Amino acid sequence: MSRRGESYLVGLIGDGITASLTPPLHEEEADHHGLRYLYRPVDLSRIGAGHDDVPALMRAGFDLGFSAFNITHPAKQIVIPHLDAVAPAAAELGAVNTVLFRDGRTEGHNTDLTGFASALREGLPGADLGAVVQLGVGGAGSATAHALLAAGASELRLHDLDPGRAAARAAELGERFPAARVVPLAPAELPEALSTADGLVNASPIGMHIHPGAPVDLELLHPGLWVADIIYLPQETELIRRARDLGCAVLPGGHMLVGQAVDAFELITGIRPDPVRLRRHFERLVGLQQGVGAA
Amino acid sequence: MSRRGESYLVGLIGDGITASLTPPLHEEEADHHGLRYLYRPVDLSRIGAGHDDVPALMRAGFDLGFSAFNITHPAKQIVIPHLDAVAPAAAELGAVNTVLFRDGRTEGHNTDLTGFASALREGLPGADLGAVVQLGVGGAGSATAHALLAAGASELRLHDLDPGRAAARAAELGERFPAARVVPLAPAELPEALSTADGLVNASPIGMHIHPGAPVDLELLHPGLWVADIIYLPQETELIRRARDLGCAVLPGGHMLVGQAVDAFELITGIRPDPVRLRRHFERLVGLQQGVGAA
Repeated sequence: MSRRGESYLVGLIGDGITASLTPPLHEEEADHHGLRYLYRPVDLSRIGAGHDDVPALMRAGFDLGFSAFNITHPAKQIVIPHLDAVAPAAAELGAVNTVLFRDGRTEGHNTDLTGFASALREGLPGADLGAVVQLGVGGAGSATAHALLAAGASELRLHDLDPGRAAARAAELGERFPAARVVPLAPAELPEALSTADGLVNASPIGMHIHPGAPVDLELLHPGLWVADIIYLPQETELIRRARDLGCAVLPGGHMLVGQAVDAFELITGIRPDPVRLRRHFERLVGLQQGVGAA
Repeated sequence: MSRRGESYLVGLIGDGITASLTPPLHEEEADHHGLRYLYRPVDLSRIGAGHDDVPALMRAGFDLGFSAFNITHPAKQIVIPHLDAVAPAAAELGAVNTVLFRDGRTEGHNTDLTGFASALREGLPGADLGAVVQLGVGGAGSATAHALLAAGASELRLHDLDPGRAAARAAELGERFPAARVVPLAPAELPEALSTADGLVNASPIGMHIHPGAPVDLELLHPGLWVADIIYLPQETELIRRARDLGCAVLPGGHMLVGQAVDAFELITGIRPDPVRLRRHFERLVGLQQGVGAA
């Protein structure tokens, strides 16, 4: 077994992530590079911790020799004030999904934005970005909204269970992308907004195996929409399944996951992984997890 | 790279252990078994922690996915009340050097005793155990004392910088091994006790690269002694070097380290390592670390 001197210990902190495919994705890619690499899921529910425990967990992790953490729902925002430095893209998003520990300092990054941007390009080439409805404006939703606007969306309609958060996010994004129209949606406006939209992005956690269901009334879907989800476990959410049945072009969450893992792996190791190989790993892993994802 | 499903994350918690050879010893042995295995040193001085921070660090480590910890100076005793279960040998010693996390419960073990016992047998075969002086009666010293008495030492003379601790340990051991004579030594008694002894064991930290020096006045050594040290970095302490120069039979700390690592690896993985291969790893690693150990 050939090994370079360096070894990597990485954790994924979030809620309901015990079955996440990110750990085996990273580990298998590292094996191809001969790196000693261990990636542990740290599921907040499983260890009885809340999102406000995350900064202390992360600190302890670095003391115990972790090289980096990926951070996911619901802790992408709470870690920020505890970092020594934040990369500009992550600061602009107000969300961090990757924390590196370098030379005794913690650095926050965000690979959700770049991951979703490449997923859109590769998984839905030529998608009409005229008017897009997005559900959920939390950490990941902030990244998908930026990616959509940066990719040229003309109108972005934001819905969140917390209408105040949708309004605040719309105002911020409107300032940053003045050529686009960014509007918050009240719950009652969702049917009308969807009926006239070209695309729908679910960036909320609804549909994950620990938050089952659909993030929107599925009767509102129509064949003119393309539909993207950021959830990859199950690989096909109810939303994606119904949209596919209706004939919509769909983008399941696995595409974003792979794009994001490629960028995170490179940040952690300095080595750019082979995205095609990573995508094949992902598909094989999803095959192995059938049943878990659907549970 | 063939891998079994299982992966192992192990830490070594102690003071001044950044250059410890235990992590690469375990990792290289695991590679031979095709296990994904990462072993991190957690040096309390480096992270600015004290020995009373160890229980919380250990707890955080298990939350973050550690499979086990080895525990060394100065934390072998403080962890005990924080464990769910303690193996009989460790309880008897009042010292734990291996903590496993199994089925949500923490279990303490001690592989110092068995490690030193096999070191004595293999490294100093036929050593006269008539009268032995031991320096230091902390966690590791408790293990070496037990091993000496269990191997048939007739008289054990215990010295510690804290004379009360030496007296208490002597009383305990005398009760447990009634066929032997176990006596505490006051500092002034050391010259006389050494002049009539057959063997000397250093179980104190004096001589480690972070505690340089010799644990006893080296003028007191004489050719009739065998001399054992539990310190392996530097591989040859001042004590071992001077004893070797005098023509004494010597047992450097590496022997105990290897015996202890064999047992710890088996506890953690359920797989008995090849002790001969581990011993060869150790010698190669010590060769690589020349200069570090001597610093």
